[in-house]
Amino acid sequence: MPLIPLGRGPEFDRIRAIAKALGPRASDLGNDCALVRLGSVTLALTTDVSVERVHFRREWLSLEEIGWRAAVASLSDLAAAGAQPIGLLAALTMAPGEPEPAFASVMSGVGAAVESVGGTVLGGDLSRGGDMSLAITAIGSVDRPIGRSGARPGDGLWVTGELGGARAALAAWRVGREPDPRARARFAHPEPRIEAGRWLAAHGARAMLDVSDGLAGDAAHLAAASGVRVRVELEKIPAHPAVATEARATGEPAAAFAAQGGEDYELLVAMPAEPADRSGIPPLPLTRIGRIEAGPAEVVFALDGRRLHFSGYDHFA
Amino acid sequence: MPLIPLGRGPEFDRIRAIAKALGPRASDLGNDCALVRLGSVTLALTTDVSVERVHFRREWLSLEEIGWRAAVASLSDLAAAGAQPIGLLAALTMAPGEPEPAFASVMSGVGAAVESVGGTVLGGDLSRGGDMSLAITAIGSVDRPIGRSGARPGDGLWVTGELGGARAALAAWRVGREPDPRARARFAHPEPRIEAGRWLAAHGARAMLDVSDGLAGDAAHLAAASGVRVRVELEKIPAHPAVATEARATGEPAAAFAAQGGEDYELLVAMPAEPADRSGIPPLPLTRIGRIEAGPAEVVFALDGRRLHFSGYDHFA
Repeated sequence: MPLIPLGRGPEFDRIRAIAKALGPRASDLGNDCALVRLGSVTLALTTDVSVERVHFRREWLSLEEIGWRAAVASLSDLAAAGAQPIGLLAALTMAPGEPEPAFASVMSGVGAAVESVGGTVLGGDLSRGGDMSLAITAIGSVDRPIGRSGARPGDGLWVTGELGGARAALAAWRVGREPDPRARARFAHPEPRIEAGRWLAAHGARAMLDVSDGLAGDAAHLAAASGVRVRVELEKIPAHPAVATEARATGEPAAAFAAQGGEDYELLVAMPAEPADRSGIPPLPLTRIGRIEAGPAEVVFALDGRRLHFSGYDHFA
Repeated sequence: MPLIPLGRGPEFDRIRAIAKALGPRASDLGNDCALVRLGSVTLALTTDVSVERVHFRREWLSLEEIGWRAAVASLSDLAAAGAQPIGLLAALTMAPGEPEPAFASVMSGVGAAVESVGGTVLGGDLSRGGDMSLAITAIGSVDRPIGRSGARPGDGLWVTGELGGARAALAAWRVGREPDPRARARFAHPEPRIEAGRWLAAHGARAMLDVSDGLAGDAAHLAAASGVRVRVELEKIPAHPAVATEARATGEPAAAFAAQGGEDYELLVAMPAEPADRSGIPPLPLTRIGRIEAGPAEVVFALDGRRLHFSGYDHFA
């Protein structure tokens, strides 16, 4: 299959146009990771690009944080596939004005992120250019790869950790305030949920993806890829502690604010049932926030029984 | 080993600084490809970034050519390792002014390049940003991986194809002329030397790299990595037919012009002897241009017995 089913929106129109142009020259686009069988091993591969003024601003983050965060964006895709990282390659373009040691500072952050999950920096390429840009390709091995298309009616829907922290930091920066330090940490130093992803893959996960576009957008990806209706009960969403303040400022319910926040890099997972045996589960909340239903491929949000409509998350561009 | 020995120059100081910052969090930087053993298979992985106004200009190339050329820059690293491509991942950033179909046009060129060597597009990431930028990560499998550090005194030095064509195109563009169509083709549509790389790896190659920085620079990489003196006889260099005209304009000997031209993506290889059995060799010239000697890690160029000194190639930035 050259392309798994995708949701609506210009971002997906773009991917559809590419899949159409590539035809059989592409394989299996649209999942978090590409899967390659090699002998007895299945590889998971993923590329993610972080561009200055699209995905981050220089004034918000240190160079090490820019490197860490870009690496986690890719490592998080490995987590969503249930893969164990082997390492990564980094293509780093620095603006002409950045001093020479900036290259090593960014790569230190990249190295720390991959080291935190047992991998190494395997290689890279360096360039000068107009904007800082960092494309990270992560590679891992996977025993039982999980994609986006395996959710079935009757499954429950869970999410790891807390949502909305990264958006809370963004919301503060956008109006010129320094964010709550806990929210800033969620944006600048997200944790790749590798352990949780592997545990969930081994304990019944049928479909999984990382919350990078916001729960609203990512639940839509799950619905489209699996061909199911996804029902999310907003009051069950575990909102990050910094969400309450920022949501008041925008006038949104906290859960709605959290559901539209991108780049938390938590895992969204559909499973038939919560695993009975939780031994070995990583020390991370796992919260049931909804269920999978038969029906058209769509997401239905309810807050205390009232239906809501959302758009996805488009970074801050 | 975190880093193989590299030559002199600011580009290598940058890599050395990164290797130092990363310490054990990096593995084996400095070769064309990273090598990862997985069960019975050895993977070769490489990332290359092409940035607008550093590696190409929009007015020189079609979008498909930009995609082709960026893909070949990575595939060529697989060729130098003696690897067979499996596929690639592409991180594509487009300037805001480019129309939406531009994404698919670039990716068509990428797809055509990887298809030409039997691989597929495995995945990617798309972004808008200030400059067009394309980071390609290529992955292949390799039976007998060849690096840069295996050259030994007594080996001969060979190069595939012809050199200097891409530089001839650049030289014309830089002074506002339309290049010789053969030179333009070498810049816009280089061929990844996958077949030649695999054949050479199977027929005695001890060290191999692709001529991306120019023969002068790449021979210096070979000398540094292998700890040997590399002697190049310039009059033996197979210069591309378009070189003569452009070299006259700069006043350089044609062979010197060809030796300093980057991005030809031919292979430079050290072998004990020319393979006696040339059966199965790809239909491509293989020219002996020098030899490996004991001595300090340096490159000695001679033109009709006279020693010359060169710098490397710094793209056109």
